[in-house]
Amino acid sequence: MTTPIGGLRLTISPMVLRRAVEEWLSTDISSFDVGAAIVGDSVGKAVFYWKSKSGVLAGFPFAEEVFRLLGCTVEWFVKEGTAMRLENEGVKRVAIGVVSGPIHRILQGERTALEALTRASACASYARLCVNRVPASWKGRVAATRKTTPGHYRLVEKYGAMVGGADPHRYNLSSMVMLKDNHIDAAGSITHAVQRARSLCGFSTKVEVECRSEADAIEACGAGADVVMLDNFTPDRVSVSAPKIKAAFPECIVEVSGGIDESTVARYALPGVDILSIGKITHGPPAIDISLKLQVAVPPRESVAAPSKL
Amino acid sequence: MTTPIGGLRLTISPMVLRRAVEEWLSTDISSFDVGAAIVGDSVGKAVFYWKSKSGVLAGFPFAEEVFRLLGCTVEWFVKEGTAMRLENEGVKRVAIGVVSGPIHRILQGERTALEALTRASACASYARLCVNRVPASWKGRVAATRKTTPGHYRLVEKYGAMVGGADPHRYNLSSMVMLKDNHIDAAGSITHAVQRARSLCGFSTKVEVECRSEADAIEACGAGADVVMLDNFTPDRVSVSAPKIKAAFPECIVEVSGGIDESTVARYALPGVDILSIGKITHGPPAIDISLKLQVAVPPRESVAAPSKL
Amino acid sequence: MTTPIGGLRLTISPMVLRRAVEEWLSTDISSFDVGAAIVGDSVGKAVFYWKSKSGVLAGFPFAEEVFRLLGCTVEWFVKEGTAMRLENEGVKRVAIGVVSGPIHRILQGERTALEALTRASACASYARLCVNRVPASWKGRVAATRKTTPGHYRLVEKYGAMVGGADPHRYNLSSMVMLKDNHIDAAGSITHAVQRARSLCGFSTKVEVECRSEADAIEACGAGADVVMLDNFTPDRVSVSAPKIKAAFPECIVEVSGGIDESTVARYALPGVDILSIGKITHGPPAIDISLKLQVAVPPRESVAAPSKL
Amino acid sequence: MTTPIGGLRLTISPMVLRRAVEEWLSTDISSFDVGAAIVGDSVGKAVFYWKSKSGVLAGFPFAEEVFRLLGCTVEWFVKEGTAMRLENEGVKRVAIGVVSGPIHRILQGERTALEALTRASACASYARLCVNRVPASWKGRVAATRKTTPGHYRLVEKYGAMVGGADPHRYNLSSMVMLKDNHIDAAGSITHAVQRARSLCGFSTKVEVECRSEADAIEACGAGADVVMLDNFTPDRVSVSAPKIKAAFPECIVEVSGGIDESTVARYALPGVDILSIGKITHGPPAIDISLKLQVAVPPRESVAAPSKL
Amino acid sequence: MTTPIGGLRLTISPMVLRRAVEEWLSTDISSFDVGAAIVGDSVGKAVFYWKSKSGVLAGFPFAEEVFRLLGCTVEWFVKEGTAMRLENEGVKRVAIGVVSGPIHRILQGERTALEALTRASACASYARLCVNRVPASWKGRVAATRKTTPGHYRLVEKYGAMVGGADPHRYNLSSMVMLKDNHIDAAGSITHAVQRARSLCGFSTKVEVECRSEADAIEACGAGADVVMLDNFTPDRVSVSAPKIKAAFPECIVEVSGGIDESTVARYALPGVDILSIGKITHGPPAIDISLKLQVAVPPRESVAAPSKL
Amino acid sequence: MTTPIGGLRLTISPMVLRRAVEEWLSTDISSFDVGAAIVGDSVGKAVFYWKSKSGVLAGFPFAEEVFRLLGCTVEWFVKEGTAMRLENEGVKRVAIGVVSGPIHRILQGERTALEALTRASACASYARLCVNRVPASWKGRVAATRKTTPGHYRLVEKYGAMVGGADPHRYNLSSMVMLKDNHIDAAGSITHAVQRARSLCGFSTKVEVECRSEADAIEACGAGADVVMLDNFTPDRVSVSAPKIKAAFPECIVEVSGGIDESTVARYALPGVDILSIGKITHGPPAIDISLKLQVAVPPRESVAAPSKL
Repeated sequence: MTTPIGGLRLTISPMVLRRAVEEWLSTDISSFDVGAAIVGDSVGKAVFYWKSKSGVLAGFPFAEEVFRLLGCTVEWFVKEGTAMRLENEGVKRVAIGVVSGPIHRILQGERTALEALTRASACASYARLCVNRVPASWKGRVAATRKTTPGHYRLVEKYGAMVGGADPHRYNLSSMVMLKDNHIDAAGSITHAVQRARSLCGFSTKVEVECRSEADAIEACGAGADVVMLDNFTPDRVSVSAPKIKAAFPECIVEVSGGIDESTVARYALPGVDILSIGKITHGPPAIDISLKLQVAVPPRESVAAPSKL
Repeated sequence: MTTPIGGLRLTISPMVLRRAVEEWLSTDISSFDVGAAIVGDSVGKAVFYWKSKSGVLAGFPFAEEVFRLLGCTVEWFVKEGTAMRLENEGVKRVAIGVVSGPIHRILQGERTALEALTRASACASYARLCVNRVPASWKGRVAATRKTTPGHYRLVEKYGAMVGGADPHRYNLSSMVMLKDNHIDAAGSITHAVQRARSLCGFSTKVEVECRSEADAIEACGAGADVVMLDNFTPDRVSVSAPKIKAAFPECIVEVSGGIDESTVARYALPGVDILSIGKITHGPPAIDISLKLQVAVPPRESVAAPSKL
Repeated sequence: MTTPIGGLRLTISPMVLRRAVEEWLSTDISSFDVGAAIVGDSVGKAVFYWKSKSGVLAGFPFAEEVFRLLGCTVEWFVKEGTAMRLENEGVKRVAIGVVSGPIHRILQGERTALEALTRASACASYARLCVNRVPASWKGRVAATRKTTPGHYRLVEKYGAMVGGADPHRYNLSSMVMLKDNHIDAAGSITHAVQRARSLCGFSTKVEVECRSEADAIEACGAGADVVMLDNFTPDRVSVSAPKIKAAFPECIVEVSGGIDESTVARYALPGVDILSIGKITHGPPAIDISLKLQVAVPPRESVAAPSKL
Repeated sequence: MTTPIGGLRLTISPMVLRRAVEEWLSTDISSFDVGAAIVGDSVGKAVFYWKSKSGVLAGFPFAEEVFRLLGCTVEWFVKEGTAMRLENEGVKRVAIGVVSGPIHRILQGERTALEALTRASACASYARLCVNRVPASWKGRVAATRKTTPGHYRLVEKYGAMVGGADPHRYNLSSMVMLKDNHIDAAGSITHAVQRARSLCGFSTKVEVECRSEADAIEACGAGADVVMLDNFTPDRVSVSAPKIKAAFPECIVEVSGGIDESTVARYALPGVDILSIGKITHGPPAIDISLKLQVAVPPRESVAAPSKL
Repeated sequence: MTTPIGGLRLTISPMVLRRAVEEWLSTDISSFDVGAAIVGDSVGKAVFYWKSKSGVLAGFPFAEEVFRLLGCTVEWFVKEGTAMRLENEGVKRVAIGVVSGPIHRILQGERTALEALTRASACASYARLCVNRVPASWKGRVAATRKTTPGHYRLVEKYGAMVGGADPHRYNLSSMVMLKDNHIDAAGSITHAVQRARSLCGFSTKVEVECRSEADAIEACGAGADVVMLDNFTPDRVSVSAPKIKAAFPECIVEVSGGIDESTVARYALPGVDILSIGKITHGPPAIDISLKLQVAVPPRESVAAPSKL
Repeated sequence: MTTPIGGLRLTISPMVLRRAVEEWLSTDISSFDVGAAIVGDSVGKAVFYWKSKSGVLAGFPFAEEVFRLLGCTVEWFVKEGTAMRLENEGVKRVAIGVVSGPIHRILQGERTALEALTRASACASYARLCVNRVPASWKGRVAATRKTTPGHYRLVEKYGAMVGGADPHRYNLSSMVMLKDNHIDAAGSITHAVQRARSLCGFSTKVEVECRSEADAIEACGAGADVVMLDNFTPDRVSVSAPKIKAAFPECIVEVSGGIDESTVARYALPGVDILSIGKITHGPPAIDISLKLQVAVPPRESVAAPSKL
């Protein structure tokens, strides 16, 4: 059986990926890269090392595209989605993969690939942390939010969240329609807003309503909302309202959002709650450290340094 | 006297800024935005609120460009670069600016503008934190690194670092040449590598050498390096080596890098050190919280909610 | 009350619209336009005329963007979405709007604007025709499909369909997930395919299953599909299966697709059917004729031609 | 001897083709394609079927580029430009080619490739229909017009027209200069307009004049126009004027345009006429139906369905 | 009467111009421009000076677009196309126009605008020089060639050539078809090649044949070529062949190309020759010197320098 | 040992190169290239010939990328950077390389590749000419300036200058900061301007000051400028000032600029001068002639022409 992660990577838009990575590489070498002439174009290898205490490894498709566009290839020693852990004190790093190709190309892709790997891994790690905090008995899912880096870089962050086990939530404003206070005020009522949204976005797009009260949620469900979001509710309020809403509208998805993080997520994993969305998964998760070290066939300059190389 | 921040915003490439923000907005509304039809295009205002305990406000040019491209205007109540602080317990937020324009446009730009503001502010805040930790008597500067988001988004992060008082460091591989182990191994020696780099990049670009020992640094300076970076040195090693290098090559810039953060930066602010570079300034600084709230002229639906709106 | 059409235009992504129209105009004048130098840049007006027997007028936002980018302005005499009809034999055309600006700019935008107007109107007209054929008592909706012109031009076609009263259906492969035979064969069963899709696309995206039998549809609904599509069913089969599916899964949306057009749509508008999707709405609807005629202040060359000009 | 069609495909700009298809594919998978993860990346084949009663097959270069960019290959069973015909009642489709590659890539390119094939074939089919209606003895050519989809998609339509045997006519405003009423009014006379156009566009670009009378045409030819277009002339007027114009100016090309379609084209194929241009060739020709069906090696779910597959 | 130059500027594709200039400006300020912060954004003026001994001023549309995109405006003191001359020894420069706007924006556009002005003027000047060398009695025209800078910058060079009075010749490979030896060898004969070209490019595009002998030219004209190019003929051979070709095919255009420059052009201006094409007009014409000097309201630092500032 | 030129080519940004060349090729075949269909796609070869009296060959990476993108390969007979010379009178050209691939692709890339080769070679040749004029004893370097073609084409020119042996100077406004009169006037003094620039651009970017007097230069060096440019100084003034400045500030780089060309460069190669910058290296150097000739396997049409082909 292929793992879910194995399939997940196939979902990335191949053409958007190519264009985004071309843009990243163009921006990082806007004219000349003198270093390239100095290392030269002999073929070599460089090893990726995981260096954080613990976390989830993610971002393979981005690193591979960086090096593919530069004429290099990547081989991984560990599966994407693996929970990494530097077990004992003495181990400072674990080799996770190797890039092969002309040395100057490896160095030209190094930073871009590492950024994508560490960002995706940071999102994946924090997602997994949150996912692991909710009780196994809970039926709902932890989700990311739309708080991502602007531009195509959000692909990295949404993907990382998914590798970590989180629901990606809507991709952008053209995905699921989200009705907030202002939409409802302008439409005159929740009911009008939902009906209007439904008639415009069609049957293929979901409509969600941001609710400040249980009554809002009940009205939204009654009007045909697919999802209601209980915004900034305390766990106590959620524990009362969510089951009531689900009882009345079993098919409606109940999302809880606002101020949830790894320390509080378990308290929100309550009956009747389908989705717990956490902005920090894509917006400011703790950093992950991964590095890339060239392996050189030539004798090292300083013999004392040799042992520390791979 | 105009403040440095006032001038700083003029340095951003106007055409790169426009193109980057166009890309961000295109990505966030890839086809239709049904919400826009529901709020409508009547003219309104929305207020930016600072919501973090403390930090430095940054990112104005990006937020302004977002709204300019959408036909809205922004007015700020606070100067960019201001150190924000929510003084007492009761204050949850401070109004920092207002956007005016068609409501649907304000909402279309909301997330993109907030992302840029919070990212720039996070970089600025962490930069300022580090800058404030070094003794006033120290002559050097705290600097960011090239660990930024790939693509044009690095503009936001480098700019934020500068607003916070940090030196931006090199922008990309086409800026200052950085010679690392691999370059030196390939060239045969530090001296050869520096001479080769100098002949290729010309007089207008600086050459820096990453050094693993004081001897490396001395050789690099002697060969004509503009900057030497003491890589992963302890404060103790720095305290010995930096003054020696400066004594021998007063015009050479001494950078220290590797494992420096807000907790250790003060210990590295030593005589002979010109630059302390800190990756975390642009790569994973603590998040800053800023929100945007539409002000509605129509009576709010729920009176209980009214007081919390501006 | 603003009409739905009035709001509809606000849903178009402003930045995607701008970029698409810039591309269209760039392609139509790839280097020089000698005609521009001959008509000159004096300010003038040109009138849009509707010339088809009947149909629905659509595409205003595209025509406006064409001329806005060229420094001209458009004023409409008729509301977008109006059902046009050339009543009696003698009337050959109806003025529907006017462009003002430098004459050479008007001519440079003419063809691009007309193409967008006539394509959007063709989609709107055919959509309206189909919508008008279903009985008022039927609760479902007529919908378009993903059979559109590749690239951003689909905005024009999807928008036209909506102006005509049709549901736009999914925008692209990144919208609602559609599971077909191949997906199901690969997953091993409908149930596995739906569960897999749901876990990957998250709660915010709908999952639809293309079904070749009622049994398929029942399995899909049971597995959590949001929509089931009865593919190439005869009206008779639909009349039996749709109510059964809806009875078992009231919240599941039942779409019928395959071989439906204006001549058969009424027979498919059956109880239990929510969506009737028609490829021809965006793919090959009958053409609509709209023209643009410059109004010249100078005396025309041939007096006999004068009466036929506006 | 290579057929004209064989050579025709070489005329397409390789870089414009690549960029256009990249844009089409980017637009159709703007972020994630969940279906890809469900079908997986095992290698498979899919067969293109022609499904319309009759028509001319065209668009190979576009379908091939779609699949080339996705890492698949296409093999055709029929030559481009072949007149297809589903002979007897029982035959519903004819296999015309096969795509090989990873299944998820085949499905990602399916719609884009089919749109290009069906659009090019629709243009080719209608062009061929018109071409076949003119007597073999007539020396002139049927031509398309500039009424095409805006943007690079016009490549598909112009190419289809050529495969069908039509003259492509000018590509855009930067090709042959076309002088209409407004140009002539602004210049003061046909003679002035033609001379002005000639001096600006140079010797390498042709100048055409839209004429409302035989006198206009005579003046235009006398002034040096390369082509005169008899606009909205009846066949009777054409039969009188065209020979006169040709007699006076044998080297001048006489085009007739306006209201010509497959039902009237034969009546316009008169002596002295060189070009009969027909907007419908690229603008709203009758749709052509082509489909793509994956061939699966695994046993099909439903045995009854097997015979209908390939 | 408007001058030809006045109209000429209208021919430039507005959208291609905008995109090209955006690219030029993006490339010249790829990230930050520190100088901008130092001069500040107060409003000022800068004067364009012509500094070459003689030449023709061209390139206004490009300089204007540069400054328009930067929020500045340009006013010219001299008409585009004017033959400039620094009459007596003492005059070192002549003011030709003024830019107004924020000072930092003026400086950001300075180099890009000057490059376009000086390149266009260099092409115009050399074109005018050649045009002035041919006798007034000669009926033909001097033309440029396709030897231009790759990319959209050719707009500047072709435009400059036209301002100087030269025929622009074909813009790119998609303009007039040019058949050279290889085309003819592959087709088997000139006649086959011309017929094939004509059938593929249609009636709206001209076909030219590069000829190595009078016989080639006669065959090409007979086959329907619109233009024949006598390639690398001496004036003597031209004087014999051109009249013979024209006598046989009066409507065919005779171009002479190869090794013609300002010193030999007069000898080629012979009866029967329509076009003398000169690569040097766009490819390596003598440079023209134009500068831009900011006018400062503040007292200059050094009084001795003052006189030389405007 | 690899030559400097061998390494130099590695410095070019691979992604910027690809994008630039794609743009060049797109622009040169904006729609169809009929010639391609006539020569056909059989595989062939074409030989590059150097045809100028003397000069330095440069631009290989650009020509290779042109043909790589078109599916052809290039092999060179001569090293890039070689000083070419057509020794005796009879030799008209020297074969320098060969392109292999489909004939129509070779012809489609011909002009673009030749333009890049001749432009790079022209810059290299003029650079070498100037470099060879300065005495071997002089320690400084000849440099290019920022006077380049706008857009990415400057890559070609800067690269050519480097191949010729010149220092490339700053790439754009985002490279080294250059402070001119206006910056200094706005800042109030040289000292203020330099300090301000240094604080904004950081330690990794150099700051240069354009000086009108020795006093200016002394002040600039004292304020921390990395480079001072003596602007429009006579050799006499330079001979006095440069040594004084160097004596006072040995680490400061002294550039001399303004009115230097191949005829005067030797007189400026004085003690104390580090850089002599010459605008003509990239802006209007004398043209170089290189051609590409297809080698045809088929018997040539005219036997007399055969000897002149390779």
